[in-house]
Amino acid sequence: MVIVLKQKFEQRQFDNLLKWLEGLNLKTTLVKGEQSAILGLIGDTSVIDIDMVKAIDIVESVRRIQEPFKAANRKFHPHDTVIDVMGCGLLETQTSFVQIGGGNFTVIAGPCSVESREQILDIAAKVKDAGSAMLRGGAFKPRTSPYAFQGLRTEGLEFLYEAKKETGLPIVSEIMNVNHIELFNNVDLIQVGARNMQNFELLKELGRIDKPILLKRGLANTMEELLMSAEYIMSGGNKNIILCERGIRTFETYTRNTLDLSAIPLLKEHTHLPVVVDPSHATGISKLVKPMSLAAAAAGADGLIIEVHNDPAHALCDGAQSLTPEAFAELVGSLNGILQAIGKKEIVPKLG
Amino acid sequence: MVIVLKQKFEQRQFDNLLKWLEGLNLKTTLVKGEQSAILGLIGDTSVIDIDMVKAIDIVESVRRIQEPFKAANRKFHPHDTVIDVMGCGLLETQTSFVQIGGGNFTVIAGPCSVESREQILDIAAKVKDAGSAMLRGGAFKPRTSPYAFQGLRTEGLEFLYEAKKETGLPIVSEIMNVNHIELFNNVDLIQVGARNMQNFELLKELGRIDKPILLKRGLANTMEELLMSAEYIMSGGNKNIILCERGIRTFETYTRNTLDLSAIPLLKEHTHLPVVVDPSHATGISKLVKPMSLAAAAAGADGLIIEVHNDPAHALCDGAQSLTPEAFAELVGSLNGILQAIGKKEIVPKLG
Amino acid sequence: MVIVLKQKFEQRQFDNLLKWLEGLNLKTTLVKGEQSAILGLIGDTSVIDIDMVKAIDIVESVRRIQEPFKAANRKFHPHDTVIDVMGCGLLETQTSFVQIGGGNFTVIAGPCSVESREQILDIAAKVKDAGSAMLRGGAFKPRTSPYAFQGLRTEGLEFLYEAKKETGLPIVSEIMNVNHIELFNNVDLIQVGARNMQNFELLKELGRIDKPILLKRGLANTMEELLMSAEYIMSGGNKNIILCERGIRTFETYTRNTLDLSAIPLLKEHTHLPVVVDPSHATGISKLVKPMSLAAAAAGADGLIIEVHNDPAHALCDGAQSLTPEAFAELVGSLNGILQAIGKKEIVPKLG
Amino acid sequence: MVIVLKQKFEQRQFDNLLKWLEGLNLKTTLVKGEQSAILGLIGDTSVIDIDMVKAIDIVESVRRIQEPFKAANRKFHPHDTVIDVMGCGLLETQTSFVQIGGGNFTVIAGPCSVESREQILDIAAKVKDAGSAMLRGGAFKPRTSPYAFQGLRTEGLEFLYEAKKETGLPIVSEIMNVNHIELFNNVDLIQVGARNMQNFELLKELGRIDKPILLKRGLANTMEELLMSAEYIMSGGNKNIILCERGIRTFETYTRNTLDLSAIPLLKEHTHLPVVVDPSHATGISKLVKPMSLAAAAAGADGLIIEVHNDPAHALCDGAQSLTPEAFAELVGSLNGILQAIGKKEIVPKLG
Repeated sequence: MVIVLKQKFEQRQFDNLLKWLEGLNLKTTLVKGEQSAILGLIGDTSVIDIDMVKAIDIVESVRRIQEPFKAANRKFHPHDTVIDVMGCGLLETQTSFVQIGGGNFTVIAGPCSVESREQILDIAAKVKDAGSAMLRGGAFKPRTSPYAFQGLRTEGLEFLYEAKKETGLPIVSEIMNVNHIELFNNVDLIQVGARNMQNFELLKELGRIDKPILLKRGLANTMEELLMSAEYIMSGGNKNIILCERGIRTFETYTRNTLDLSAIPLLKEHTHLPVVVDPSHATGISKLVKPMSLAAAAAGADGLIIEVHNDPAHALCDGAQSLTPEAFAELVGSLNGILQAIGKKEIVPKLG
Repeated sequence: MVIVLKQKFEQRQFDNLLKWLEGLNLKTTLVKGEQSAILGLIGDTSVIDIDMVKAIDIVESVRRIQEPFKAANRKFHPHDTVIDVMGCGLLETQTSFVQIGGGNFTVIAGPCSVESREQILDIAAKVKDAGSAMLRGGAFKPRTSPYAFQGLRTEGLEFLYEAKKETGLPIVSEIMNVNHIELFNNVDLIQVGARNMQNFELLKELGRIDKPILLKRGLANTMEELLMSAEYIMSGGNKNIILCERGIRTFETYTRNTLDLSAIPLLKEHTHLPVVVDPSHATGISKLVKPMSLAAAAAGADGLIIEVHNDPAHALCDGAQSLTPEAFAELVGSLNGILQAIGKKEIVPKLG
Repeated sequence: MVIVLKQKFEQRQFDNLLKWLEGLNLKTTLVKGEQSAILGLIGDTSVIDIDMVKAIDIVESVRRIQEPFKAANRKFHPHDTVIDVMGCGLLETQTSFVQIGGGNFTVIAGPCSVESREQILDIAAKVKDAGSAMLRGGAFKPRTSPYAFQGLRTEGLEFLYEAKKETGLPIVSEIMNVNHIELFNNVDLIQVGARNMQNFELLKELGRIDKPILLKRGLANTMEELLMSAEYIMSGGNKNIILCERGIRTFETYTRNTLDLSAIPLLKEHTHLPVVVDPSHATGISKLVKPMSLAAAAAGADGLIIEVHNDPAHALCDGAQSLTPEAFAELVGSLNGILQAIGKKEIVPKLG
Repeated sequence: MVIVLKQKFEQRQFDNLLKWLEGLNLKTTLVKGEQSAILGLIGDTSVIDIDMVKAIDIVESVRRIQEPFKAANRKFHPHDTVIDVMGCGLLETQTSFVQIGGGNFTVIAGPCSVESREQILDIAAKVKDAGSAMLRGGAFKPRTSPYAFQGLRTEGLEFLYEAKKETGLPIVSEIMNVNHIELFNNVDLIQVGARNMQNFELLKELGRIDKPILLKRGLANTMEELLMSAEYIMSGGNKNIILCERGIRTFETYTRNTLDLSAIPLLKEHTHLPVVVDPSHATGISKLVKPMSLAAAAAGADGLIIEVHNDPAHALCDGAQSLTPEAFAELVGSLNGILQAIGKKEIVPKLG
């Protein structure tokens, strides 16, 4: 950490600062220029609250040199982490198993919300056929309006579990409440949505289980904050984190959010955790799902999470934000071209 | 709601859309131009998920005309709501009482974190003397890093309660966990922090109690989303909401966040709920607290929530982000000038 | 400047870097920690291109300590600059004179665009009566669409000049083209609009004249970039710069831009130049002009630039984004209350 | 265009509005609901200033249905525009020719700044060998600081011209001043940089020539604004516009800007103009150039503009933000894999 000191300060204030830093077991070196002085700190600075230091009277500015995350940091764990997702709650003979990270490219597909037993069973079969490795579906839905449909909740989780038993696909669903962890016993990969990325009490609880977590970047969160939220879970003991880029909030109005694909190579440089991309929510425009999926694969993502919808009766006028299973199957075909080009294993559709 | 249709579409798709809208009890009027057609919807459109409509194949864009919030909407409740905050848990003779909104200007002051019994008792006495109507103090702290101090938690709430009993000042503290509501029994105004503004499960629970809620705007949330989060709480039955502007995330780097003071008149136009401002967290710079406090008062805010710190031994090198009690007292003096200028009642310091 | 070096690097690369820095007359001090090393640079680092240093292989990050602006920097010019605006082109007996900065509070008012001779003469008289010290009016208009009205151009400048001769009010108008400087001979304060804040070729030319410049902050520009653009003009010799905050682009949709009032105290801390605020363009909502004007004054602004419109026939349905002269006069009255409260001289309306 | 009217208004105001709209040759249809009324406008609404309509007293909000750009609009020009770039000023026998758009994938490479004759001749030869179709190089540099190197200016253009004569590669360089157009006689593709995207006076002049223009998106400009700036040039008669996405300003700090790759499919949906991507400036990190280049190609871009640097003596410590010619050649190889996968013609290196 480097502390830039103000042009003028009292010696007493400086002595107080040094004493406090020594109390934190940090060594200091002072570099004095004509206009200003800087204080270099050596040691474990991750305990320091950078905002508090900035608030000190004689401090002009502060800059971390060491990254504040450790467990998630590639510097200390140079090899890619590979996350094993098991189809929990299946009979031994049914047990399915998916790996994310470490050169694998994994596609997770399914509807935004679980709407009925029939819907989820139908989509599950179709996305499996097309090459999806896992099934996603929302049971608890974070909705801006209290008057909007809030999801089928526990019933939705049960339908997802049935779909898993039918297809063998491990299931992914979003948790919104620290009290729901037990309800998610049969969910194989628990998603923390963008709005809960800094719900620290939830992150702490998820650190106490050992189930894989899909952690989505918040709409207004930096990559470093995403890594710090991963660190929350990991510092509790759960190392099975998959990061997910899903767009950030900007001034642009043609898209709902701006998908930040530079997050893929940057996150993978800073962390050993896998990074997947959600092109459906980021843009809110189904036509963009294919080009953004190909781009994400080309940029080195470890996988995708894609909305697929099946029900033409409900899917008003045939066109929903999510793709149809047919469009999804075609997307997988195009993805395979990109994967081949960058030297990754292709996705194998399991057409029944 | 106005639905703009695409240039070309099949009649069948259009019929499906109309049928669905009729099923929602909405009347429709079609306006056809040369290049495009628009569909006006009349009726209660608050049940419609705007993102779902946007996703329909034949829809080019959608725009709400009616605001999606009702309970919070000034159109249906033209008079200012005045929130009564009671010093709960006090003896009858001690009972204190504060009103926010409706022409009152209320200052809430106290430290960022409760650090010790002595600290909070000392600050409480001093901010009361200077004119603070309530005492703030963080017991559960939302921290970006899992390695940073997380607050004194329940012990912090107890110290706050003691300070209330000593001074009679109602107390404000932040809740981060849906399971903590009972712990907050003696807290008089429960704060929902910026990071939890869209923790919908927490909002729902807070809708089931009748204690006043201080709802802070999220770093990347629009004013409409803030009003929708208030609507979550209000739709559960709890109408006692105070909104708080505390800065939004922008590209500017001189400040931590950009305090959006235009939110004061705009929110007050759209809602009958009181609006207060937190200049300390918004800017992260103690020197800005005074000018931004005066500006907020001039712009018509119903109050302020200000960090005040007392402990010169801990407050490194004499200067913390928060003001000293002396600087706070001076700020109250300047505020009174502004309040007088805009025709509001002045704050009366209770100097012992 | 502090250069943080990467964890591992070759000695040869480090030697190259040191040699280059010495060639720039900079002294260096190396501070080595366990994880990383930092290099402190002492000397005039304003010649260094920070992006180029960041691009060096062995460099992890770079941070300026000295601010990159000099002429605009309050550190080297602690006293407030007061800008004298003269009504150029007037007869000696008519000559008018206005001061901005240094404790004065100056209001500039007038229409968005000069629309006709009658319009500008009428508004000029009315805003003068109400207390405006100068007259604004757009002759060359920056319009997003090539099909929209582009202003009366030179004819507009002539009408403004006539209004000056009638009222004695110095005039302010926006320049958009480096070739128009001569056309602006009779304009007393030349405005550089938000879209041209980084039109460096224009800034250089304006540095060669000695007329005061009103420099508006760009929609996506930091305060430091605004100060660097002022530095462009000042480094050419023209020291007469007034800075103007007029809102920045954010995700919020209730306002056109987000007015950043924290820029007032922050800019005034970093620079000795005056800072005024444009509440009309920032918000795009006439109802917000009054509260934001009062807030700007309370936060310490040196003045305001406000749109005032007069023509009820053209001003469709009586209500334009700009205020009417009557509303402006009422605003001046309220401003005087705030100015009195903060100890500044009140505005004296010159009611004929 | 749809105008949403306020809940209550006087008939006289409404009549004024209708009269004004009729004067603009627009037909209107009123749709009345219980809470509000909307007015649909039919006809050519591109002449309407949307901000002015918003400012009308009885107007609640306004929404365009027709896009405000015409010449650039794909609706009226469904086929891809292919831009021919000719190596002007070459002998007939030397004449080179490049096409951008319409299924071609074109790479433009070269240094950020032209630094010397030797440098640009050397890089030109190397990027040609590796497959670059054109040579870029900055002669006039937009620099935030007046104290930073401003480019070799006319001398830089001469060196570029020499490089063109040596290699036959058409040249690209940035214009910053409306008076420099003649200096750019031998430049084959004139670049308008991000900071000048809304320098409307410059755009108008460029509309009067027939040379191709590379128009970069501004840091804080929406896609629609980019299209409107293209419309400025096209409305003057010059239809040869290539759009360039180069990152937008967000809160993220790991990258200099956030590259918005969703702009590729979205712009190509709205316009027939080619869209290229500048991954070097967007991110400011040389390691990201390759993954973002591959992603841009996968997302359907018509080409790339990439910084390539050669001079190991000047390129401090071997590593500049721009790629070396070797890294560029390797990038072209990887790009070819992606181009093959998406069915585009591969780039043919012209290794001498």
